Amino acid sequence: MPYFDAASAAPLHPVAREALLAALDEGWADPARLYREGRRARLLLDAARATAAEEAGCRPDELVFTASGTRAVHDGMAGALAGRRRVGRHLIVSAVEHSSVLHSAAVHEAAGGSVTEVAVDRTGRADPAAYAAALRPDTALAVLQSANHEVGTEQPAAEAAEACRAAGVPLLVDAAQSLGWGPAPAGWSLLTASAHKWGGPPGVGLLAVRKGVRFAPQGPADERESGRAPGFENLPAIVAAAASLRAVRASAAAEGARLRALVDRIRARVPELVPDVEVVGDPVRRLPHLVTFSCLYVDGETLLHALDRAGFSVSSGSSCTSSTLTPSHVLRAMGVLSEGNVRVSLPAGASAKDVERFLAVLPETVASVREHLSAPSASALSPASPASPASASAPSAPAAPSSAAPGLVVDALGKRCPLPVIELAKVIGDVPVGGTVTVLADDEAARLDIPAWCEMRGHEYAGERAAERGTAYTVRRREG
Amino acid sequence: MPYFDAASAAPLHPVAREALLAALDEGWADPARLYREGRRARLLLDAARATAAEEAGCRPDELVFTASGTRAVHDGMAGALAGRRRVGRHLIVSAVEHSSVLHSAAVHEAAGGSVTEVAVDRTGRADPAAYAAALRPDTALAVLQSANHEVGTEQPAAEAAEACRAAGVPLLVDAAQSLGWGPAPAGWSLLTASAHKWGGPPGVGLLAVRKGVRFAPQGPADERESGRAPGFENLPAIVAAAASLRAVRASAAAEGARLRALVDRIRARVPELVPDVEVVGDPVRRLPHLVTFSCLYVDGETLLHALDRAGFSVSSGSSCTSSTLTPSHVLRAMGVLSEGNVRVSLPAGASAKDVERFLAVLPETVASVREHLSAPSASALSPASPASPASASAPSAPAAPSSAAPGLVVDALGKRCPLPVIELAKVIGDVPVGGTVTVLADDEAARLDIPAWCEMRGHEYAGERAAERGTAYTVRRREG
Repeated sequence: MPYFDAASAAPLHPVAREALLAALDEGWADPARLYREGRRARLLLDAARATAAEEAGCRPDELVFTASGTRAVHDGMAGALAGRRRVGRHLIVSAVEHSSVLHSAAVHEAAGGSVTEVAVDRTGRADPAAYAAALRPDTALAVLQSANHEVGTEQPAAEAAEACRAAGVPLLVDAAQSLGWGPAPAGWSLLTASAHKWGGPPGVGLLAVRKGVRFAPQGPADERESGRAPGFENLPAIVAAAASLRAVRASAAAEGARLRALVDRIRARVPELVPDVEVVGDPVRRLPHLVTFSCLYVDGETLLHALDRAGFSVSSGSSCTSSTLTPSHVLRAMGVLSEGNVRVSLPAGASAKDVERFLAVLPETVASVREHLSAPSASALSPASPASPASASAPSAPAAPSSAAPGLVVDALGKRCPLPVIELAKVIGDVPVGGTVTVLADDEAARLDIPAWCEMRGHEYAGERAAERGTAYTVRRREG
Repeated sequence: MPYFDAASAAPLHPVAREALLAALDEGWADPARLYREGRRARLLLDAARATAAEEAGCRPDELVFTASGTRAVHDGMAGALAGRRRVGRHLIVSAVEHSSVLHSAAVHEAAGGSVTEVAVDRTGRADPAAYAAALRPDTALAVLQSANHEVGTEQPAAEAAEACRAAGVPLLVDAAQSLGWGPAPAGWSLLTASAHKWGGPPGVGLLAVRKGVRFAPQGPADERESGRAPGFENLPAIVAAAASLRAVRASAAAEGARLRALVDRIRARVPELVPDVEVVGDPVRRLPHLVTFSCLYVDGETLLHALDRAGFSVSSGSSCTSSTLTPSHVLRAMGVLSEGNVRVSLPAGASAKDVERFLAVLPETVASVREHLSAPSASALSPASPASPASASAPSAPAAPSSAAPGLVVDALGKRCPLPVIELAKVIGDVPVGGTVTVLADDEAARLDIPAWCEMRGHEYAGERAAERGTAYTVRRREG
């Protein structure tokens, strides 16, 4: 049963398991104590720190172990922002950072700080020039991920670090997704990572702060981990995290190349096998093991369940039917389709055979979800196709968009992603070339998916406006 | 090699080990994911929560897993204080809480809140009436440990809870030391605990918040654990923590009674075997497995090392030669001797044979440390003994205390605990009954240990005043 969601959590690496078991016996005592069990625990902790620091590219006394990658980000950002509070309270992040970064930024803003969110292009990559331009005299901290967790795109962290260095601003690089695959980008001032992403156990994050970076830990004082990570050290897991980091890095080049080829295969084959698919993320400057694509007229969660039944565990950035109801902020920032989104992240050791099986079952799985949703078939999308829009109404004055000629109106109010786009696709054949159709929708995903649909199908997205209920999205039909 | 420091960290319980191993295989995936590995992880997490909640005496949806007991306290106090900010910003703690509580209180005070620290008696117990009297209309939160971590004394948490209930103030009970031994005291509004204290793995704390208690999680938002404990769940450790809590609680009554008898034996025998010892903490209302005593004329760390060489791992609340240089805040609040402090906390399964061996080696170990420090022997302490105080000077006007008749002055400036007390003991025989001796000292422990020495030896402590360097402590000799 192939598990293809390593970017969420990787199965425990055998070296991690072995190290954890040994450390459960040898490293359960308090490393701050003076007796032999404590000294033994201290030796294990010191050795784990030395190993992790070597892989992170820093000195052992620059690195502490936190309870998670999320805590490393929370506490790293809070400490760096507080440490440079006299310089100012401006923070730079990219729009596609992990939620732990964006939520930390929100807290900073709520407390009176200012935040610049640097936009990304359609591949999910922040423009280094835009990142550099965001630097201000009062910038206390800049944050940039090494690579994106949802679409795999590598960020220009080294270039950003260079600009930050020139401006005297520390850069926190969130290397959660990449540290298992190779060294962190050069030039970071603070580094964060998460062990369970590389096959270490959960419960361990890394926070490294370069000597000379002003850092003021926030929250109640605690003597553990240089005062930067409160609470009794999770030593067996720390030992396992360090040992597995070393192990995965030793084979990262070869395994990364192998998985990169498998991902290239997925990137190439999925658009050939499945109609109306958009593969997103940078095709070259990317993580080796991760690929994301979105399928028109598909609800991501239903697709996930269908793939799960077919034996494949993948994740999705679209959550039409889950409790959140908003599409992934990453896909939104990229301006790409969110519906029917699938992220495949291969764990180390993933087999070519399983990837081929995935490619074999994906087309029928997507087709069955589309059929269930009564989505238009690929052929039905041609202009000549007979459309029978159940909920399309005749042109109606009150709901008409502000375009010159009132066009067709589709009432998709109360319908969840991907239904508004499906309704739109069903009627586009009835719209004369150059004419418009307006979709009334109150599902948040429509704001992203209707423009993305236009981009994919070659129609013109003519804009949105608030309607009496929901939002009116207007599309002008092109030849395509 | 007997390990007698279970109150710092207990060795992993066999049930915890077994559960951890199983959960490493079954519970490494993200419990928030929809695929089978995620659902399996969610089932394990739900089951662990149900088990822990049952042992904690609450509903599963009232309990979250944190990364440590320290984090449970930090985040529990911060959330409760913020949740009741409109009521006021007054916080009540006892003077002998764990440092995580006192450091949280310090942060609260630094941010403009007010804190009442309820004093304790010489057994380390807070007076319930004093605790109740500290309640004010603007009290947002009260915190009281179930039992003290250094001396084992049980606090009147149920009485405090009753007073808090009457005043409409939530009480956070820190049950870190007691939850493995039995149910938490009745009436808590918030409860915290730490798994590695009961034989669970490190990396797991419990935070329970009763329904209806206003609680506003602080820090960056995070969807995990009801928004109360950010970061990816440390699931294998959580499963092990819950399983071992159930296991230790099943045998807690029998094992507690057995260890209670062993501790009673230590409490009775130590003063018989070792001269000039003070056994501290409540002799009856106490944790079953923990006993603390202090030895005059002994440096705690040296004694720890000597006991370690003799094969016994214990801890100490006196840290004369460590980096902190201040005696335990608990012993200070109790007003008892801090020097030569030893805490024995027996792990489950500790043998009577090992306890007898400890009692056998303790006298000679203490004696050797005293000899090394040239401490007065027990017989030398009698008034008739010839004293040869190397550093005692003739009465000198400038350093004389403010007492009517200038007495002997001992210059112990620059000398670390326990040397100031040793110097004092060496000269007391030269002081006429009713006369005074003044010790000049700049070691922080002297402030606690000189009055405690007076109490133990039946002399009158006549007070302290700032001297040109350090502090002048004056003692009036009594018959004793």
